[in-house]
Amino acid sequence: MIQVSPFDSTLFNPLLSDEETGALFNDEAFIKAMLYTEGALAKAQAAAGMLPESAARAISQAAQSLSLDPSLLAQATASAGVPVPALVKQLKAHLAEEDAKWVHYGATSQDIVDTAAVLILKEVIAISEVRLKHVIHSLAALAKTHEHTLVAGRTRTQQAVPMSFGIKVAQWLSPLLRQLERLEQLKPRLLKTQLAGAVGTLAAMGEYAVDTGHHFADTLGLECGDNWHTQRDSFVEWSSWSSMTTGLLGKMAQDWLWMSSTECAEIRFTNGGGSSTMPQKCNPVNAETIVAIMRLNAGWCGQMHQAMMHEHERSGSQWTQEWFILPNQCMGLNVALRHTQEALEHIVINTEQMLTNLSAFNGVIYAEAITFELASSLGRDTAAAMVKEASQAAIRGEGHLFDLIKTKTGHAIDTERLQSSLVSAGATTPWFHQILAHADQLT
Amino acid sequence: MIQVSPFDSTLFNPLLSDEETGALFNDEAFIKAMLYTEGALAKAQAAAGMLPESAARAISQAAQSLSLDPSLLAQATASAGVPVPALVKQLKAHLAEEDAKWVHYGATSQDIVDTAAVLILKEVIAISEVRLKHVIHSLAALAKTHEHTLVAGRTRTQQAVPMSFGIKVAQWLSPLLRQLERLEQLKPRLLKTQLAGAVGTLAAMGEYAVDTGHHFADTLGLECGDNWHTQRDSFVEWSSWSSMTTGLLGKMAQDWLWMSSTECAEIRFTNGGGSSTMPQKCNPVNAETIVAIMRLNAGWCGQMHQAMMHEHERSGSQWTQEWFILPNQCMGLNVALRHTQEALEHIVINTEQMLTNLSAFNGVIYAEAITFELASSLGRDTAAAMVKEASQAAIRGEGHLFDLIKTKTGHAIDTERLQSSLVSAGATTPWFHQILAHADQLT
Amino acid sequence: MIQVSPFDSTLFNPLLSDEETGALFNDEAFIKAMLYTEGALAKAQAAAGMLPESAARAISQAAQSLSLDPSLLAQATASAGVPVPALVKQLKAHLAEEDAKWVHYGATSQDIVDTAAVLILKEVIAISEVRLKHVIHSLAALAKTHEHTLVAGRTRTQQAVPMSFGIKVAQWLSPLLRQLERLEQLKPRLLKTQLAGAVGTLAAMGEYAVDTGHHFADTLGLECGDNWHTQRDSFVEWSSWSSMTTGLLGKMAQDWLWMSSTECAEIRFTNGGGSSTMPQKCNPVNAETIVAIMRLNAGWCGQMHQAMMHEHERSGSQWTQEWFILPNQCMGLNVALRHTQEALEHIVINTEQMLTNLSAFNGVIYAEAITFELASSLGRDTAAAMVKEASQAAIRGEGHLFDLIKTKTGHAIDTERLQSSLVSAGATTPWFHQILAHADQLT
Amino acid sequence: MIQVSPFDSTLFNPLLSDEETGALFNDEAFIKAMLYTEGALAKAQAAAGMLPESAARAISQAAQSLSLDPSLLAQATASAGVPVPALVKQLKAHLAEEDAKWVHYGATSQDIVDTAAVLILKEVIAISEVRLKHVIHSLAALAKTHEHTLVAGRTRTQQAVPMSFGIKVAQWLSPLLRQLERLEQLKPRLLKTQLAGAVGTLAAMGEYAVDTGHHFADTLGLECGDNWHTQRDSFVEWSSWSSMTTGLLGKMAQDWLWMSSTECAEIRFTNGGGSSTMPQKCNPVNAETIVAIMRLNAGWCGQMHQAMMHEHERSGSQWTQEWFILPNQCMGLNVALRHTQEALEHIVINTEQMLTNLSAFNGVIYAEAITFELASSLGRDTAAAMVKEASQAAIRGEGHLFDLIKTKTGHAIDTERLQSSLVSAGATTPWFHQILAHADQLT
Repeated sequence: MIQVSPFDSTLFNPLLSDEETGALFNDEAFIKAMLYTEGALAKAQAAAGMLPESAARAISQAAQSLSLDPSLLAQATASAGVPVPALVKQLKAHLAEEDAKWVHYGATSQDIVDTAAVLILKEVIAISEVRLKHVIHSLAALAKTHEHTLVAGRTRTQQAVPMSFGIKVAQWLSPLLRQLERLEQLKPRLLKTQLAGAVGTLAAMGEYAVDTGHHFADTLGLECGDNWHTQRDSFVEWSSWSSMTTGLLGKMAQDWLWMSSTECAEIRFTNGGGSSTMPQKCNPVNAETIVAIMRLNAGWCGQMHQAMMHEHERSGSQWTQEWFILPNQCMGLNVALRHTQEALEHIVINTEQMLTNLSAFNGVIYAEAITFELASSLGRDTAAAMVKEASQAAIRGEGHLFDLIKTKTGHAIDTERLQSSLVSAGATTPWFHQILAHADQLT
Repeated sequence: MIQVSPFDSTLFNPLLSDEETGALFNDEAFIKAMLYTEGALAKAQAAAGMLPESAARAISQAAQSLSLDPSLLAQATASAGVPVPALVKQLKAHLAEEDAKWVHYGATSQDIVDTAAVLILKEVIAISEVRLKHVIHSLAALAKTHEHTLVAGRTRTQQAVPMSFGIKVAQWLSPLLRQLERLEQLKPRLLKTQLAGAVGTLAAMGEYAVDTGHHFADTLGLECGDNWHTQRDSFVEWSSWSSMTTGLLGKMAQDWLWMSSTECAEIRFTNGGGSSTMPQKCNPVNAETIVAIMRLNAGWCGQMHQAMMHEHERSGSQWTQEWFILPNQCMGLNVALRHTQEALEHIVINTEQMLTNLSAFNGVIYAEAITFELASSLGRDTAAAMVKEASQAAIRGEGHLFDLIKTKTGHAIDTERLQSSLVSAGATTPWFHQILAHADQLT
Repeated sequence: MIQVSPFDSTLFNPLLSDEETGALFNDEAFIKAMLYTEGALAKAQAAAGMLPESAARAISQAAQSLSLDPSLLAQATASAGVPVPALVKQLKAHLAEEDAKWVHYGATSQDIVDTAAVLILKEVIAISEVRLKHVIHSLAALAKTHEHTLVAGRTRTQQAVPMSFGIKVAQWLSPLLRQLERLEQLKPRLLKTQLAGAVGTLAAMGEYAVDTGHHFADTLGLECGDNWHTQRDSFVEWSSWSSMTTGLLGKMAQDWLWMSSTECAEIRFTNGGGSSTMPQKCNPVNAETIVAIMRLNAGWCGQMHQAMMHEHERSGSQWTQEWFILPNQCMGLNVALRHTQEALEHIVINTEQMLTNLSAFNGVIYAEAITFELASSLGRDTAAAMVKEASQAAIRGEGHLFDLIKTKTGHAIDTERLQSSLVSAGATTPWFHQILAHADQLT
Repeated sequence: MIQVSPFDSTLFNPLLSDEETGALFNDEAFIKAMLYTEGALAKAQAAAGMLPESAARAISQAAQSLSLDPSLLAQATASAGVPVPALVKQLKAHLAEEDAKWVHYGATSQDIVDTAAVLILKEVIAISEVRLKHVIHSLAALAKTHEHTLVAGRTRTQQAVPMSFGIKVAQWLSPLLRQLERLEQLKPRLLKTQLAGAVGTLAAMGEYAVDTGHHFADTLGLECGDNWHTQRDSFVEWSSWSSMTTGLLGKMAQDWLWMSSTECAEIRFTNGGGSSTMPQKCNPVNAETIVAIMRLNAGWCGQMHQAMMHEHERSGSQWTQEWFILPNQCMGLNVALRHTQEALEHIVINTEQMLTNLSAFNGVIYAEAITFELASSLGRDTAAAMVKEASQAAIRGEGHLFDLIKTKTGHAIDTERLQSSLVSAGATTPWFHQILAHADQLT
């Protein structure tokens, strides 16, 4: 109930927000990005021969040095539905008349807002990328430590068969590598200028239109976009990427919630939330927050897809929606990445409890592995029949499977050897090394 | 790209935010509501005989006078996942030890946050209700003015048959009356206290539990809730109501966008956004903003429904989601209502253009009405056949239907009488008066 | 990947569909409902004096006896965007010319489709209501059985304090009672006729318009609606109600998933899915399906809110969306209710395991209760200090809290008395009985 | 209200469904795909040396020839939550015991369902791709035809400045080219096998695990996936792509709705829906349907993002959600593409009306262009001032801008030359040719 979005709240900043990302989303930063874009436009137009170098220099300098109070622009923003006209007016007011007339020449408000948004997104993505690689690095380290740790594989909430905890961690990691690949592919489509003029033809720039566009892109260090003002696919692609990323982090965090629950207790976070009256409490706040953001981001992503319906050459109703959604997705993603990293720095793995949990059903979870072990001496079919019988007895509570097998066959299960075979069973080892090798290439 | 949510931006405040509502959503207001709730709890416990009157008085006074800096609570909020423990600690620090020990006694953080949220929602709803009634009032006035104005009824984007513009306005109004009815019904389910203790039993309040609950509700002027901490249906009901309301406003605003488009031009907003280089521009900013919020609010509503999945006796991941969504829905609703009212105060109806548009297809839109008129003299079947033939000729561009009919039948259509019959055709008048009478009862 | 929606699949019928509800959603049933509506319209118009009794009788009889092959109407449906014109044509073809001319007289396609949809919804709701009451009844029985069963209250995935399992069940039940209340309130707004003609004025029915409307409603056993064709609030209200209901069922099912997980093991479903190779498996298929539907239904609800944007007097694009969403929400709700009931008929409560789980942290979960017990002899402050010290020792693994207390104070905890006090602690008993009494009133 | 999803309805097939795509989504096709997958698994295992060639041949042949009645599997599907165990049982029943024991050896149900789903998706995508290219081709032809057609550029619902209709069409086309690029990039991530065994280690395949995986992929003509069973990013990436595609088609269709409205009338569809009583009607059914699907698909996409939360090594609740969503997204996409193509084959461009509409405000929309024209003779500032004055007079209704300019300056506007300059103004021509060249490369 705070600052409309807790992302903007001082009270919630260390929990639900992120200072580094937050510095990119505020009136001042946005105004600055728009002014910077106006300056770059003037420089590009001068380079194309459309306006005097002196005017471009004056505009660009004024744009960079100007510090506009948001409240100054507010009222005019309301009437225009967009802050650019008021901003242009203020910028002009700080210039000599002969320079002022060239400000924003032939451009439209959306050129400025969209390009400024791309510039901000570029910085957001840089943060996301660093954090994502950091998370991948931490997961890789965790995976390596626990390649030979045994844990129950669980399907549909029930223990299924034992597996390496290292490969479980590698499965959290693996799709994040694909996310990096996707990010590389989407960047050239996303990080591009918007410069299209009133209706997408740059008519008012006449013969200078195309050249100006190229210089504009060069000046800003972006790809040169064309008239994509009503084609929002690139923003929506990033939006989907953002939500997919938090979806993958959310799946991992959800696993953490299950694993750190009192009854499972296989992991614990040393920075868990406590309670003065309940000393046993260790609330997994990082993981909960990641799950919360995953759910919200899926919703925001859906909203972005709904907002693609720009009519004709500009849509006040659809475009406005993006201003609400994109910043939340940027912040949400970076906050989720921060919490993931934080959790990974405070996670404690209780390998002993993992083994204990595997005995939940008197060891029947080892049935398949024991069958394999006995097959060499008893033959596959006899082994299978015997283990099945013993398993049923174990399920009925007549003893641990290991003991029942021994009674039945005289064969003493070498627990350690059995467990060690399980952590590298089947495709575990090659898959593990393949994923880890891929992760290592990043560093 | 501003303040994460433009709802929080100075730059966008007059366009996308609302000061009156915004005053309810900020760190200070939220901290104040939580402190007020803690004070009310102490008073209720004293009334129930659970703690000394003097302690209750001290706590309640401290809670009311205390002004806590959000940044003071921020770090602890991060570790607990909720700001209440830090707030309680600060409150205790401002009290004598013998009083301090009774602060927050037997309560849990969610009791405080949920009850504070309800107190804020109550104020938000009061604003919404005033604005909604104001909108209804304005629409009723508009409808009355135009009961006898003829406009094209349009189905599937095509002109269908003429109708009263007054009844069109009444159709915008009518479902808003149902929204008021729904609001009355949901209020007692929503505006209730949350006081349930650690897991929903108030165990730590022992024999005083039930009495404290009743006094707590009385003190706060709310219904007495029980342990609904994981039952979020009442919040979701309001969320759905909020989105239904903006859905209805959005439908109306969408109609305005069509009607104020250059080619239709039946309405115009005197506060429309202009352009220095395009003097003909009159951008319907209010309507666009309403449509934008309608789409966003439908998304937020979907997010609230997703957030019902609280596990066990408290869910850090689900509950946190609400803090992001509810304030946006409150603000969005009130901003949409404000824009609706503003638009209604600046709307100009071009009744002449409405008539002009009715001639789009050489008057064939009047075909059915003319058939009725001719039926009395020519018989229904002959009249129908004749009008059909003439209509086809009109569609082919051979002349206006009125003229073609005259040529064919010698019958001169009394345009005025025809149009006047159309504005009260069928059920128009009784329905119009029924809706308006219902609206008038509100004032 | 089956029949587009698994709701329509033979293969998935016993899992993801429901025969009783499914009988309401198919071409034949829908055509029948539309024909029935056409018949009722003719009867109503005759009653209003608009058309001959004989025609009404002929139309109504033909409409009832006619069995139209959907493929007959298909091509024409594509070109009109709605199946009514083709249906009317077929109906007319089965009547004498003098009766045929009165079919669908003055009505519009949406009148027929919307009213038929309401008729179907009425039957769906009847099924939902029976099932919901059945679920409430089963939950009430379960709650009563376990009023005095102790279970760990869990917050943020961690055990918090012990509580009555009966009150936990009552918390699942309580909001369902509010859902019944809401259903009663929304019924008169939802179960109403649509009869408004081409653009919402019933112009073509002339002086008979209003009377026809009333007779139409009487004939169909529905409230008399007016021109709500573009006012979709009532459908959206039901949609939200449907999603709220599955949200509440989903929360309960999610709790079941946690409680039936191998490590918690407090409940089990005797109809759980097994595995030939993993004998310990007991997959909670009912609960999983409910959770799946909860998530989907929240999404469908969001889609319905998005579909409120009908432009002008009829929207082909918005209205069409409802045809996809509403049937899924109807089916989803009834399937979820069926799975809930099925789960409740197969649930096994392991009260012993509930007690075992409470010892997870050497009994520190009892700390608060022991403090209360010792307070009478040692004084509150001394008791609290002593228990705190012992709890920390227990957490460190130095022994069970009961033993540590005994060593420290010589006081032997009467475990049974302690536990019995906990199942009725605080507000447990009055709340429990209040909820159960409310539930009992239903039967 | 039909077949739960109208996608499955005979009645709605020609409007809301698609036979070619529908053939991929039904019990029979799905069962066939699963059987085919089981056969391929046996062959791969034989190739890896894990089972006898003869068994593989027998299994593969039986799998291909077997035709299973869905109702046979239905009851078992309900209890297992997935149809594979029943399918395997049936397949085994059609084999000699020595072959039967190798069916589904070491695999898990999800391996079969996910891989079958990918096989189906591959076919769906092939259809989508053909249709998308077809649409691009049609748009390219339309754009070329109208490169020199003048139309009003419209921003925020208001006419802004004139532009080439060809470039407007090219803007519809341009992002579809990016969609093809994205599709190429996502294919290798999506079209891959799932073969991971019980918990993602292929433990039960022992030393044959990795080899089997490679042979399995080769046999099926898919990339070789690893244990991505709980990593749903690739399905979600396609889901987002599907929704982005319909988002882009929806924007175009929404433009068509505006342009074909009675008042704008710049385009018309010869296959529009008519009305017996309203001869002027030409309902744009294709466009409406595309818009409807765009909105629905955005919602389905949001649902897919929500469904990423698979817990541990298999989630019954999350996985099940996909079965509802993916087929709808496949069908919706292909239906939308079909309607787009159909619309493009029936679109009629009224170039005369486009010119007429440009005179809406007495020609002030030409103001900027006239200023440029006059600048050469009068100087830029004088020209601008004069045109501004004349524009205001035109807006006030004092005459057409062309006439007012002539009166004021003696300069007669060469309308044709002016308009012809406008269709190639600014960056129009280079951008137009760039987009078209890119489109042409596809063919």
